[in-house]
Amino acid sequence: MPNTFGHLFRINTWGESHGGGVGVVVDGCPPRIPLTESTIQTELDRRRPGQSSIVTPRKESDTCTILSGVFEGMTTGTPISIMVRNEDQRPSAYREMETMYRPSHADYTYQAKYGIRNWQGGGRASARETIGRVAGGAIAKEVLAKFVPKFEVVAFVQQIYNITSDISPSDVIFSEVESNIVRWPVAAEAPRLIELIENVRKQGDSVGGVVCCVIRNVPPGLGEPVFDKLEADLAAAMMSLPASKGFEIGSGFAGVCLKGSEHNDPFVMEDGRVRTTSNRSGGVQGGISNGEDIVFRVAFKPTATISQGQQTVTTEGEAVELKARGRHDPCVLPRAVPMVEAMARLVIVDHWMRQRALAWE
Amino acid sequence: MPNTFGHLFRINTWGESHGGGVGVVVDGCPPRIPLTESTIQTELDRRRPGQSSIVTPRKESDTCTILSGVFEGMTTGTPISIMVRNEDQRPSAYREMETMYRPSHADYTYQAKYGIRNWQGGGRASARETIGRVAGGAIAKEVLAKFVPKFEVVAFVQQIYNITSDISPSDVIFSEVESNIVRWPVAAEAPRLIELIENVRKQGDSVGGVVCCVIRNVPPGLGEPVFDKLEADLAAAMMSLPASKGFEIGSGFAGVCLKGSEHNDPFVMEDGRVRTTSNRSGGVQGGISNGEDIVFRVAFKPTATISQGQQTVTTEGEAVELKARGRHDPCVLPRAVPMVEAMARLVIVDHWMRQRALAWE
Amino acid sequence: MPNTFGHLFRINTWGESHGGGVGVVVDGCPPRIPLTESTIQTELDRRRPGQSSIVTPRKESDTCTILSGVFEGMTTGTPISIMVRNEDQRPSAYREMETMYRPSHADYTYQAKYGIRNWQGGGRASARETIGRVAGGAIAKEVLAKFVPKFEVVAFVQQIYNITSDISPSDVIFSEVESNIVRWPVAAEAPRLIELIENVRKQGDSVGGVVCCVIRNVPPGLGEPVFDKLEADLAAAMMSLPASKGFEIGSGFAGVCLKGSEHNDPFVMEDGRVRTTSNRSGGVQGGISNGEDIVFRVAFKPTATISQGQQTVTTEGEAVELKARGRHDPCVLPRAVPMVEAMARLVIVDHWMRQRALAWE
Amino acid sequence: MPNTFGHLFRINTWGESHGGGVGVVVDGCPPRIPLTESTIQTELDRRRPGQSSIVTPRKESDTCTILSGVFEGMTTGTPISIMVRNEDQRPSAYREMETMYRPSHADYTYQAKYGIRNWQGGGRASARETIGRVAGGAIAKEVLAKFVPKFEVVAFVQQIYNITSDISPSDVIFSEVESNIVRWPVAAEAPRLIELIENVRKQGDSVGGVVCCVIRNVPPGLGEPVFDKLEADLAAAMMSLPASKGFEIGSGFAGVCLKGSEHNDPFVMEDGRVRTTSNRSGGVQGGISNGEDIVFRVAFKPTATISQGQQTVTTEGEAVELKARGRHDPCVLPRAVPMVEAMARLVIVDHWMRQRALAWE
Repeated sequence: MPNTFGHLFRINTWGESHGGGVGVVVDGCPPRIPLTESTIQTELDRRRPGQSSIVTPRKESDTCTILSGVFEGMTTGTPISIMVRNEDQRPSAYREMETMYRPSHADYTYQAKYGIRNWQGGGRASARETIGRVAGGAIAKEVLAKFVPKFEVVAFVQQIYNITSDISPSDVIFSEVESNIVRWPVAAEAPRLIELIENVRKQGDSVGGVVCCVIRNVPPGLGEPVFDKLEADLAAAMMSLPASKGFEIGSGFAGVCLKGSEHNDPFVMEDGRVRTTSNRSGGVQGGISNGEDIVFRVAFKPTATISQGQQTVTTEGEAVELKARGRHDPCVLPRAVPMVEAMARLVIVDHWMRQRALAWE
Repeated sequence: MPNTFGHLFRINTWGESHGGGVGVVVDGCPPRIPLTESTIQTELDRRRPGQSSIVTPRKESDTCTILSGVFEGMTTGTPISIMVRNEDQRPSAYREMETMYRPSHADYTYQAKYGIRNWQGGGRASARETIGRVAGGAIAKEVLAKFVPKFEVVAFVQQIYNITSDISPSDVIFSEVESNIVRWPVAAEAPRLIELIENVRKQGDSVGGVVCCVIRNVPPGLGEPVFDKLEADLAAAMMSLPASKGFEIGSGFAGVCLKGSEHNDPFVMEDGRVRTTSNRSGGVQGGISNGEDIVFRVAFKPTATISQGQQTVTTEGEAVELKARGRHDPCVLPRAVPMVEAMARLVIVDHWMRQRALAWE
Repeated sequence: MPNTFGHLFRINTWGESHGGGVGVVVDGCPPRIPLTESTIQTELDRRRPGQSSIVTPRKESDTCTILSGVFEGMTTGTPISIMVRNEDQRPSAYREMETMYRPSHADYTYQAKYGIRNWQGGGRASARETIGRVAGGAIAKEVLAKFVPKFEVVAFVQQIYNITSDISPSDVIFSEVESNIVRWPVAAEAPRLIELIENVRKQGDSVGGVVCCVIRNVPPGLGEPVFDKLEADLAAAMMSLPASKGFEIGSGFAGVCLKGSEHNDPFVMEDGRVRTTSNRSGGVQGGISNGEDIVFRVAFKPTATISQGQQTVTTEGEAVELKARGRHDPCVLPRAVPMVEAMARLVIVDHWMRQRALAWE
Repeated sequence: MPNTFGHLFRINTWGESHGGGVGVVVDGCPPRIPLTESTIQTELDRRRPGQSSIVTPRKESDTCTILSGVFEGMTTGTPISIMVRNEDQRPSAYREMETMYRPSHADYTYQAKYGIRNWQGGGRASARETIGRVAGGAIAKEVLAKFVPKFEVVAFVQQIYNITSDISPSDVIFSEVESNIVRWPVAAEAPRLIELIENVRKQGDSVGGVVCCVIRNVPPGLGEPVFDKLEADLAAAMMSLPASKGFEIGSGFAGVCLKGSEHNDPFVMEDGRVRTTSNRSGGVQGGISNGEDIVFRVAFKPTATISQGQQTVTTEGEAVELKARGRHDPCVLPRAVPMVEAMARLVIVDHWMRQRALAWE
């Protein structure tokens, strides 16, 4: 339902960018998983504003507190409540939002839906909402680390504006992605992207891009055959992230230009396991993992908040020009990477638990 | 959960291509909606095999029976059970599936998940599973027709292999789409596509494509702000369809190459309503409908079943060459159109009911 | 939701007493469970009308058909659709229901809720609706038989009107319960109950009673600590049965007259297991099974349908006297026993699967 | 799921008696409902320890903070996160719980389920867990106050140990219940109950009792016909409260001793509305409200924590005698009253929203 994600491993996020804070309740986490605040903090720091020169300068330490569900360093199986206080709130910077609808933001749609909105900083539509997701994903990571050997999720920025990386997802290494502030898979190329983003910022403009994500060592058999196909749940997870506009798995939209004879992934035996010699399926067949890398891509639009003047209307229906003053990211991609990873882990851990419930032996 | 879709308006589909039949239980349909079998049959006929020369020749009338939930031509608010018998079953045509995994089908993944599979005709992974979806969508259509004036869903084939239609989705008319067997938006161009598909069939091969869908006259305010964003639920719905590999809404992947100043949709007043002068948002902002057309695209891969020989392995792990004998579609796109429409209606009717529950007045 | 029960092992029932039939879709059943129609039929026959002289004479064979989800005698993990056709429909016997509200039936409330109702035979409020539950419970029984050694559910009629059995639930044996048409735990006492019921029937009246249920060899650790406590789910399951008015577990309402020092169940070790020397907890502590017998009781009111004249109103608001003509049970208790067992098994199998998903080892 | 209650109006509670605190996330609350912390605090104060001489002396102010979802005194439709800090924690008082299982507590079952437990003060099995429920119920109260005229829930203590009040539930007035610390419906009789409880406390013992609850002015048509019957959801809600052992609605267990002709509620017209002249149905027929008072009763066992010595075993399996030192209620009934009311409101508000989604006009 509205603010809940997952069936067995379930997160319920809450909070706005302006108010007491943001947080998450994780319900259904298996017991006896080692967990500390610093494990969660590591992931939150990757999502944090102000982490580099190319993201929003909003000053938030995003320090998390575990309020429940952990005892003597281990999960107890009961709900894990995690809170992050808001620190750098500047409602005055958003004062004009009270009376104007920012183009391509959720101001108007929230008003249409609820007849009321917290106009300070975007409310639930703020990227701060994703703190709860990233915290939940950090816990999912620990569960998977305990039970699924070698399981790994690596997301990276594959495209910004018109610059695309051509490295194969199979070759991307987490440490190299994390070694540069763009989260570009080839660190040596990062300066070019940084320059692009900084130029855009100077113009008071913004750019979008594509995050690619590869999930390695997924056991075969995860997913469901009809509505909760693994790719359907991954698509929903990714399309629920702020600013995402597209999702594709395996061959995706490009696969349309192949014939079946070129597209099918032949099966072979390798080390006693059924494998495929190509991976246009993207690791999923009929909604269920086949043990190959799951590879998907997510398109993010350019940030809606720009400082150039824009045409819009007031809540009273008058035409006005808006110039945004709030702090914002000229490009959300570097910070989207840990969000994509978190959502991917939440999908996989949930399906892994579901499959465990179903196993016939 | 596995075979259930929707929260308030919910369908539970069942059945395999070989067995007693396929069907759906629709739970949560509002009462007092006029409904007959012929209303449902109209939509099923658009999905039916054998409907034209370019789809699978499997001979199924797909005649539906309403078993419950309708009294004197009106829904009663109780579960509507709909069944379609399987008629043209040829398990022998699938005999080799018992021992071989068809490339890019779900044979291997079902085996990995369940340790057993109904190898006759693909089981739940068969396109016959979508009969229940289309029947459910036909009921959703009647509900929306009663409560949401002028509401309309029009899907059409926008691309097959390397041929793309350049008509604007806003200009596409249902009757023209239905006037040709390809479900191409410009009927005069259909022969070129038919020729393409027939050539592919002769080669024992298959092609994929893109279905575009436009939803008109959606009330502003439908959707949820975080996980159940309208685009997230639409993405899950579409990615749960057999053979789909990608989803994008509004500007989608192409929007990545625009700057924020080019991408944002300016607001204006029009006839007392808040409107946008462009629609790169695709009718959804912050997960919630803004009243503009919802426009999305779904990529379908080339059909996995081809009659050319393919490399694969047996369930015993031996390498073999497979030549499929089952009847199949050289291109799923024409039949995917009513499936996309059905899923779109199921998403919208559910969110419409959710919004009704929430309304503050 | 409305017609669905269970989280992981889930049933969706459909159908009315008059119409195409009744049925159930079982979703989430583990694969590779041996299953045939005759296994299900055995349980349906225990619920069937016309099974003895003291139940309704409606003539229904209640023959079930498995339409999907089973292949070569084994479940496949996909939805199991089961249908039972209605055979003995006499809408004319209900003709006055079209315009009158039967006292203590659901005629008026359905009208208030839906603005329409299938007045032939009670619609969804008919006891025929429970066919789907009993079929689902029969499948749950097979799953539990495979995975939980010695697991057993025995329900029996403990009270009818003012006659109560004083046998301890621990001593009740399934075969003795089934050996008499009352399903009384001591067969030798059954004639007295049969006489009571037959006298009531002659008076055109009805009686209620209490079903007691004991669940043996439940593994410790099933249930959830807060909302989905095992007793909460059992209570909901039982209170969802037609005509039930009360539920109690362990000491129940009578436990109120004990002090804590008398009520607490002391722990001891027995054969290396933690056991209790008394069982006022009824096998559940803090919502979770402790390995002792789960013992609960369900009160069923006297059947609402009686042939004596009764005061009521028409749908137009006029006062009238009603004399029911439909066939009915003078006492629902004997047929309630398999319903209680089915619901108990559905609750346990679901929690067993949930616990399996959560297990920390 | 485990810590979540409700479908459309949903609460997710978290927290243990020892740790950072306890709280709730309320998801799905309609927007534009006036809400302040003091509204919630009023209900929490009725549940609070230390409120009178006959409840536990644990010193907790239970001061609540609203962290999100409210803007300028109105709900915004987004999740409402509420937190209460733990203040009076004395883990040392529970030190022996680390190694012993308290009889009729959840220590052993939590260990069996999770393989770990927060032994300080009972963890999630502590009555502190109900703070989240009462806070959620306080919000439900405001929603119902806005939309359902004259709606009222009044719960009261109807029995303690062997003393029972014979006042008709219809005659019970909220202000009189709240005027005495027992929450007895006739204040003049309260001293006798206070004396009983104080004597029991002096003996180091405890007593249980029955809470009766009456819900007035429920619109006809709330509830669902099969699994989510109103009485089923109320039963689950009440049986999920700590220490509850039984639930009955309307005539309940006593109704078993009536014949159908005595039990049925005749319909009459009154002021243009369909009414019943008696209310043995308890306001619900076929799972759906009929507009009469909903009347149900909940049995609570004597508090498990007593200071008399008790036989038990250690986690190592050794027999020991336990003397509890933690502070506790000699009788939970007075504090159970606001919990019962909260759960009743949560059930009704959820069904009210569900019905709103379904309405045919």
